[in-house]
Amino acid sequence: MRQLSHHRTLVTGQLSRHYDDRMARWEPGARQRLVRAAVELFTEQGYDATTVSQIADRAGVTKSTFFRHFPDKRELLVAGQETLCRLLADGVADAPESAGPMAAVAAGLERASTFMGPENRELGPQIQAAVAASVELQERDALKTVGLAAALTEALVARGVPEMAAHLSGELGVLAFKRGFARWSEADDDGPGLAHYALAALDELRAASRALD
Amino acid sequence: MRQLSHHRTLVTGQLSRHYDDRMARWEPGARQRLVRAAVELFTEQGYDATTVSQIADRAGVTKSTFFRHFPDKRELLVAGQETLCRLLADGVADAPESAGPMAAVAAGLERASTFMGPENRELGPQIQAAVAASVELQERDALKTVGLAAALTEALVARGVPEMAAHLSGELGVLAFKRGFARWSEADDDGPGLAHYALAALDELRAASRALD
Repeated sequence: MRQLSHHRTLVTGQLSRHYDDRMARWEPGARQRLVRAAVELFTEQGYDATTVSQIADRAGVTKSTFFRHFPDKRELLVAGQETLCRLLADGVADAPESAGPMAAVAAGLERASTFMGPENRELGPQIQAAVAASVELQERDALKTVGLAAALTEALVARGVPEMAAHLSGELGVLAFKRGFARWSEADDDGPGLAHYALAALDELRAASRALD
Repeated sequence: MRQLSHHRTLVTGQLSRHYDDRMARWEPGARQRLVRAAVELFTEQGYDATTVSQIADRAGVTKSTFFRHFPDKRELLVAGQETLCRLLADGVADAPESAGPMAAVAAGLERASTFMGPENRELGPQIQAAVAASVELQERDALKTVGLAAALTEALVARGVPEMAAHLSGELGVLAFKRGFARWSEADDDGPGLAHYALAALDELRAASRALD
């Protein structure tokens, strides 16, 4: 955990420089520190045994700061879901008019990938492990997946893609994002970003889909 | 609700004849009555406002009978998930060796459809309404969907289907089952069974999938 803490300090430091003037009130980095502290504790002692107080303590904030950022400990692990949905949808909406559903989904994946930095890449496998060990988290994670697919589907329908094709493309997009994320997490530090892996996974899924029957 | 009660009695009566000897201990029909009572109460007064005691009362059983059948009120609405998973997987496993992934999925859908009778068809839309009104139920429902897709995927992988094709086929199968169920619920009483609608939806999804890009 030493290395993680070092990295945390760097990230927090960067944020502080950006948001210096609002620091006292908004506690920059608190949200990120809470997520990291929670993931560490879930990994060390399990999700059920971890309390909000412990998470707040480890993150160096008060319990009321915790509750200003998250309604409960479960929501920590799907932090960013709304932003991801918005980026996916925006990417689809901004794709060229001539783009078919799969090209539009690819644009959504590229846009959403910009949201995921080294912190997400590093925490991803630990979050997945915590989810795998808790039915409660699996439920929340499943609903997040449904939400991402719905965001893509709605954005495609808004482009005029027929509902069934939009639904299918949305599902393919979410599968590609998840597979891409998993490969990105396992890859070298200095390799390409998430977008590269997500788009490659989308291509593979599309090829596999053509070859079904 | 008069008509529903009449129908319930008929179904319970059939069960009683089958399981006459175990009747005292296993309270045949209690499980089904609990599901129906819960759906009625969720529809009338909402999921959050409904207690286990109210559900047990309406079903004419004790609270301890409730807890012999379900761990909590939420699990009522995904009753049968394990059986559905097993039937989907068995259908896939028993498909002819020559069947490709989509034909194997079709066999799984046919097998699973045998589990769904008039009671399910009738309660389906009310259950969907209850789910739509409660985030807690949406989470559980999303996890159920993930479970059904996983059951199909695993059964396909066991047949030697490559993992990505198996995953895609599993997702298509679940989409088809859900769409087929929705159409079956809206269709005439004396029309074809669920299998017909699920297989038609699978064909449509497959056609839409071929036409993507």
